[in-house]
Amino acid sequence: MIVLGIDPGYATVGFGVVHAIGDRMTALAWGAIQTKPDTPFPDRLLDIHEGVLELIEKFKPDALSVEELFFNTNQTTAIGVGQARGVIVLAAAKKKLPIAEYTPLQVKSAVVGYGRAEKKQVMELTRLQLNLQKTPKPDDAADALALAVCHIRSASSQIYQP
Amino acid sequence: MIVLGIDPGYATVGFGVVHAIGDRMTALAWGAIQTKPDTPFPDRLLDIHEGVLELIEKFKPDALSVEELFFNTNQTTAIGVGQARGVIVLAAAKKKLPIAEYTPLQVKSAVVGYGRAEKKQVMELTRLQLNLQKTPKPDDAADALALAVCHIRSASSQIYQP
Repeated sequence: MIVLGIDPGYATVGFGVVHAIGDRMTALAWGAIQTKPDTPFPDRLLDIHEGVLELIEKFKPDALSVEELFFNTNQTTAIGVGQARGVIVLAAAKKKLPIAEYTPLQVKSAVVGYGRAEKKQVMELTRLQLNLQKTPKPDDAADALALAVCHIRSASSQIYQP
Repeated sequence: MIVLGIDPGYATVGFGVVHAIGDRMTALAWGAIQTKPDTPFPDRLLDIHEGVLELIEKFKPDALSVEELFFNTNQTTAIGVGQARGVIVLAAAKKKLPIAEYTPLQVKSAVVGYGRAEKKQVMELTRLQLNLQKTPKPDDAADALALAVCHIRSASSQIYQP
């Protein structure tokens, strides 16, 4: 199973591609789609959408794992992130990819086994589970890998449930 | 000049197409793209995106006029509307259409000449300016026509500014 994890945003969209065979997980790629503040917002949306389409075409994932949005803090940013998430989800829908959504709590529970884990713990556990030498950079890419790991763990825990 | 007005949403996306030659405005079409609650959200986004692409291909507008979003009230709805707006704006960006954004205050000022106008006044003035017999239905379509009228009035007022 190959899972594409995406941490949504409009300036930086983190991505992480994880391949799982049974318990063994391998990170195939990670990074970020970045857009510039001086680019008109509609063109930033276009860059994000096409970037995600390219990732799907390149890695042919079996699912997209994307963070569920909650708007609590900065509402102006939230409007931008919401629109970016729309074009990310649209890319997966176009490619008929199943889409799984996880809250930060669910990601922490799946990766660390503890919903109140620190961000650093999530990153470190993601690194160890993927057998990487260093914590992936940028942070958005590490978050995206954690989302992919979360989906793999959630899917397999469902399979192995008594 | 042909303007496509869009009132963003994820259950109902209002649209209105207005043709302007000088001061004379004609409504070419109006209506709504509707998606069903039992359709998975990513597929609703796909229907909205493809619906807007079809409108652009059919009417070949010179600009998209779309409502600017403010998230004050229902945050859960806002996340959905934000994502829908993303795929609407993406459709225009794909077709290299200029995109204009207006707040409800700007629409009221442009159509009624008074920013605190009632919704009913906006609808009635839109109807009169477009020389329609009845107020267009659904409300989302009337709102979308008002957005198109707002862009035409704003653009021409800019041209005639001293």
